[in-house]
Amino acid sequence: MLVVMQPRASEEQIRAVCQKIESLGYRAHPIPGAKHTAIAITGNTGEVESGALEEMPGVQETVRVTKPYKLVSRIAKRENTVISFPGSIATIGGSEFTVIAGPCAIESREQAFAIAECVQRAGVQFFRGGAYKPRTSPYSFQGLGEDGLRILAEVRRHFGLLIVTEAMDTESLDLVEECADVIQIGARNMQNFSLLKRAGRARKPVLLKRGMSATLEEFLMAAEYLMSEGNHNVILCERGVRTFSDHTRNTLDLAVVPAVQRLSHLPILVDPSHGTGQRSKVTPLARAAAAVGADGLMVEVHHRPGQALSDGMQSLYPQQFEDLMTQVRQIAAIVGRTMPAAAQSSGLPRTEAVVTL
Amino acid sequence: MLVVMQPRASEEQIRAVCQKIESLGYRAHPIPGAKHTAIAITGNTGEVESGALEEMPGVQETVRVTKPYKLVSRIAKRENTVISFPGSIATIGGSEFTVIAGPCAIESREQAFAIAECVQRAGVQFFRGGAYKPRTSPYSFQGLGEDGLRILAEVRRHFGLLIVTEAMDTESLDLVEECADVIQIGARNMQNFSLLKRAGRARKPVLLKRGMSATLEEFLMAAEYLMSEGNHNVILCERGVRTFSDHTRNTLDLAVVPAVQRLSHLPILVDPSHGTGQRSKVTPLARAAAAVGADGLMVEVHHRPGQALSDGMQSLYPQQFEDLMTQVRQIAAIVGRTMPAAAQSSGLPRTEAVVTL
Amino acid sequence: MLVVMQPRASEEQIRAVCQKIESLGYRAHPIPGAKHTAIAITGNTGEVESGALEEMPGVQETVRVTKPYKLVSRIAKRENTVISFPGSIATIGGSEFTVIAGPCAIESREQAFAIAECVQRAGVQFFRGGAYKPRTSPYSFQGLGEDGLRILAEVRRHFGLLIVTEAMDTESLDLVEECADVIQIGARNMQNFSLLKRAGRARKPVLLKRGMSATLEEFLMAAEYLMSEGNHNVILCERGVRTFSDHTRNTLDLAVVPAVQRLSHLPILVDPSHGTGQRSKVTPLARAAAAVGADGLMVEVHHRPGQALSDGMQSLYPQQFEDLMTQVRQIAAIVGRTMPAAAQSSGLPRTEAVVTL
Amino acid sequence: MLVVMQPRASEEQIRAVCQKIESLGYRAHPIPGAKHTAIAITGNTGEVESGALEEMPGVQETVRVTKPYKLVSRIAKRENTVISFPGSIATIGGSEFTVIAGPCAIESREQAFAIAECVQRAGVQFFRGGAYKPRTSPYSFQGLGEDGLRILAEVRRHFGLLIVTEAMDTESLDLVEECADVIQIGARNMQNFSLLKRAGRARKPVLLKRGMSATLEEFLMAAEYLMSEGNHNVILCERGVRTFSDHTRNTLDLAVVPAVQRLSHLPILVDPSHGTGQRSKVTPLARAAAAVGADGLMVEVHHRPGQALSDGMQSLYPQQFEDLMTQVRQIAAIVGRTMPAAAQSSGLPRTEAVVTL
Repeated sequence: MLVVMQPRASEEQIRAVCQKIESLGYRAHPIPGAKHTAIAITGNTGEVESGALEEMPGVQETVRVTKPYKLVSRIAKRENTVISFPGSIATIGGSEFTVIAGPCAIESREQAFAIAECVQRAGVQFFRGGAYKPRTSPYSFQGLGEDGLRILAEVRRHFGLLIVTEAMDTESLDLVEECADVIQIGARNMQNFSLLKRAGRARKPVLLKRGMSATLEEFLMAAEYLMSEGNHNVILCERGVRTFSDHTRNTLDLAVVPAVQRLSHLPILVDPSHGTGQRSKVTPLARAAAAVGADGLMVEVHHRPGQALSDGMQSLYPQQFEDLMTQVRQIAAIVGRTMPAAAQSSGLPRTEAVVTL
Repeated sequence: MLVVMQPRASEEQIRAVCQKIESLGYRAHPIPGAKHTAIAITGNTGEVESGALEEMPGVQETVRVTKPYKLVSRIAKRENTVISFPGSIATIGGSEFTVIAGPCAIESREQAFAIAECVQRAGVQFFRGGAYKPRTSPYSFQGLGEDGLRILAEVRRHFGLLIVTEAMDTESLDLVEECADVIQIGARNMQNFSLLKRAGRARKPVLLKRGMSATLEEFLMAAEYLMSEGNHNVILCERGVRTFSDHTRNTLDLAVVPAVQRLSHLPILVDPSHGTGQRSKVTPLARAAAAVGADGLMVEVHHRPGQALSDGMQSLYPQQFEDLMTQVRQIAAIVGRTMPAAAQSSGLPRTEAVVTL
Repeated sequence: MLVVMQPRASEEQIRAVCQKIESLGYRAHPIPGAKHTAIAITGNTGEVESGALEEMPGVQETVRVTKPYKLVSRIAKRENTVISFPGSIATIGGSEFTVIAGPCAIESREQAFAIAECVQRAGVQFFRGGAYKPRTSPYSFQGLGEDGLRILAEVRRHFGLLIVTEAMDTESLDLVEECADVIQIGARNMQNFSLLKRAGRARKPVLLKRGMSATLEEFLMAAEYLMSEGNHNVILCERGVRTFSDHTRNTLDLAVVPAVQRLSHLPILVDPSHGTGQRSKVTPLARAAAAVGADGLMVEVHHRPGQALSDGMQSLYPQQFEDLMTQVRQIAAIVGRTMPAAAQSSGLPRTEAVVTL
Repeated sequence: MLVVMQPRASEEQIRAVCQKIESLGYRAHPIPGAKHTAIAITGNTGEVESGALEEMPGVQETVRVTKPYKLVSRIAKRENTVISFPGSIATIGGSEFTVIAGPCAIESREQAFAIAECVQRAGVQFFRGGAYKPRTSPYSFQGLGEDGLRILAEVRRHFGLLIVTEAMDTESLDLVEECADVIQIGARNMQNFSLLKRAGRARKPVLLKRGMSATLEEFLMAAEYLMSEGNHNVILCERGVRTFSDHTRNTLDLAVVPAVQRLSHLPILVDPSHGTGQRSKVTPLARAAAAVGADGLMVEVHHRPGQALSDGMQSLYPQQFEDLMTQVRQIAAIVGRTMPAAAQSSGLPRTEAVVTL
């Protein structure tokens, strides 16, 4: 930390600040300048509480220099974290470009199977779908809960897809940890520190979505909560932030991808579905996410978006999702990423009758 | 809801949209205009999922007309909600201007008692202090937990102050409900819907802080979660929102006070401590909050801010808090609010030796 | 400026950075810390261009320490700037709480006189009204131009009111400088540097509105442009900033008032009309602006808001404005400000027939 | 426009609103709903001023339905606008992916020629460089002015590059119109309506940068100003918006690209240099811009960024720019865009001695 003195600060005031710093157990390094004297503080292991210093006579301001995160930092670990899954060749964070796809919410076994069949055919290895849904209104569909988890478990067995699903509280986390391959923490819970601590003790990887108004530092500190409890398998996910810009539901902040990659070893995905909130924008922004260098995508797909119980506006039709995968596969190759091949495309607009369970 | 057709939409397209609306169980009212035809939808009790309509040929966009909140609305209840407390004459939401004051976190019995003594002398009836602290860093002081609650219970008995303290999860809510008079839900948990549902079943009033990037509608919908579970004693609290503006920690959005008062019957307080994050701005913004017509304030006070374990930068010194109360009392009177008188002021800068426990 | 080295930076890298700094003509002060070495730069008179340093091997980041503004700063001038007007007792920035009121746009002589009569009766000394109107749409009413200025000149003569009106470009500035007492620079032109330079050479005070997304530093730097050209009579005006918050047209950032007052000697007013965009919020926020310690208000009043050619939604009715003045006068007294007395109130709802020209 | 009545509005109030609408010359269409009555307004050619209606008894709110832009809209012109240049095969807005590159500011003939040579070799047809620089501080380098324009004219002659440079006011616009191929209007002037009107009468295409806090509607309305004065050759440019997100200088809002393309026929470029403000983020975001479907890029390049007089931090080194072009060329091909081939790459890190004039 640096304490900047006022231009007219007296020698005595400077000395008093130095003494205060020393009394807190740190070392003070006064640097006289043409206009200001600044006093550098060293010897601190954590953050210096600046309250005591800011108020001293002659002090203009304090400037924080070092970053508060440790375990998530590339300084702590230089190589990228690559997350693997028992019994699967899929990885997140390595050379592979990962796609997680599926409906916003699990609505029924029939719906889940229809969509799982579609995303699997497109070459996807991770299936998403909410059993517990955070909804702005208490009167909206809140998810099928444990029934939803059971359907996800069936999808896993039947299609061999890895399951990503959200836990909203410590109770649901116990159940999600049991049945899912990746535990999702939603944007609204990014600073639900009790939930983060519990997820940090889980034996499954955690996908952490960026909060709606989280700075990069707060985002990384939320990941630090997870890692500080022992869970080193953390996947970050940008899903748009809240700004004045009103032509999309959120503003997708793609520059956070290279920013995270510079500061941290953790993988970072992009969710263009929540990031835009509009079906027609999902594919262009998915292409952009691949091009910017993200480690993968999280995309909402629904076989009948018009009937979806939540987020129908932003869910892709199966055929649109196939097209997205084709385009993203080409771009991923350019930025040096591999993607599993798609099964043979149906070549036809997806009909809703394909899956008969 | 209103479906706006494209200027060149055909008769057939308009008819198809009307049929779709009717098939969903609503009534369609086409309104031909000079440029566009718009189709009004009536007969819906909840929100219409617009996904099915947005995608139809010829549709330009859908415009939502009615608001999603019910119980929090002034349409549901015209008179202001006034919250009273058993065994106390204090109220929130009536003609009284309520002040809740105390430290950010409970650090020790001695600290809590010293501050409680100071705020009580200034005429305050509600004592705040966190036993469970949501901190951005896992390495920061996280609060004393149950020990903190025990100290708060002692403050309550010893000073007769009503206690406001935060619950961070369902576990701590059980304990907070037991020992506090008002259960606080913090800004980071405003959309922690599991916690809201649990607090909605609590038998104590809930003080709900606005999320950092919550729109007014989302803020009211979070209150709707509480009320929909049966808890009608909800107190809203504006504490600053996150914007590009970097001269304060948050941007205090005082216009939300008249906006809430127009739409809802619930009381709304203002927290200028978190709203600014800077000691020197707290008193001016506290005056502004009283002037704008808020139902009260939530303010951080510390007898030794330089030693505070959290938020020392924004905590007032006891003497500053006395001055704040004096100024706020005058403004409250102008806007037609009463405040309990202060005990006789010490007339002296507060020394730290006053409280000897 | 401070150059923070990476934790693993070598001695050689640190030495190279120091040499680079010296080669730029500054002095380098390395400060070894437990984790990082930081290098303080002194000897610079202006801002150091950090591009050359950021890219050097071993450098983590650069941290700017000193502020770029000079003339607007309280360090340059300790006492508040008080602006006076030839032939008037009115001042801005002194102990008086200044109110500037009038219509958004001058629409006709009749309209201007009707409103001028009303605001004068309420005790106002400054009349506002746009002759040149910046409008989002080229198809909206753009102001009466020179005819509007002539009407303002008549208002000045007839009522003895001081005139505040906006200049949109260097051409209109010539004319406005001639006929007005205060030249207004609108929010959209806050960083129209050509206009600022021209206004900086004007012989009349300039009222500078904060840009919609201007940081405090940018706001002060825009004022620095005016002062650097020789115009020391600058009045700042907060008028709301653009955020995600959608319940008002802008988010009024009242904390900027004490922030400006700490850093600068210039007076700062608040415009609650543009700051909220809604008639029902203007009076509460005007009270708040007085309470927070602003030097005055800028308010839109219209005798027939329903017929206004622009901003009718946010214009007060004459009776509402009288009430605002009454309330603001009481609050101003509490924060130690004086205001001229109102002429005797009509006691009646303002009728539109009062002014017959 | 739609007027939404309060749930308890009386028949009489509804009738009065309808009569008011008719008296304004429009037609009123009441639509009774279960909870509210809404009244649709038709027959208006422009925007209805809602002030008169919002205030009537029983009215809850008004909802605007139609968009205010006309000439920029795809409804007015279905096919994409393709801008061509006399004596050049270059186009903007067609199948070609356009790159505009060069330094932030023209600093000297030598600097301009060195950079022009580099960007031309990379296959670029448009050279950018500021002669007039809008700078936050009056003490920063403000551009070479007319000398800069003369250097640009030389670059044009010598390299056959088309010139893009900024006009800051009507005076400089006269000169820029003379010597440049594209007149740039900067972000800070996006709502400088006097300048827009003048540029709308220019005989050269205008590149309009999005304002820092401009909504999409405001951005399009600024273009409407240009077109309404007769200039139909308008190029839009996204350059990042201002948000709370602090890891980049601005937040690049790439979703605006498909949003513009849906609503308007005008071409839209992306400026990743200002959009991020950090050299290391420029290439990833340039790739993303190509992938999202933009019509081109505007990029800052400098042969000696460490010595740049402005924006050195965000300027690419020549070799970095060559790499960017290589990557962008591959992505452009995937999204169906062509780009002129690069001259043979030097294959070596660019040395500063290459250009000896």
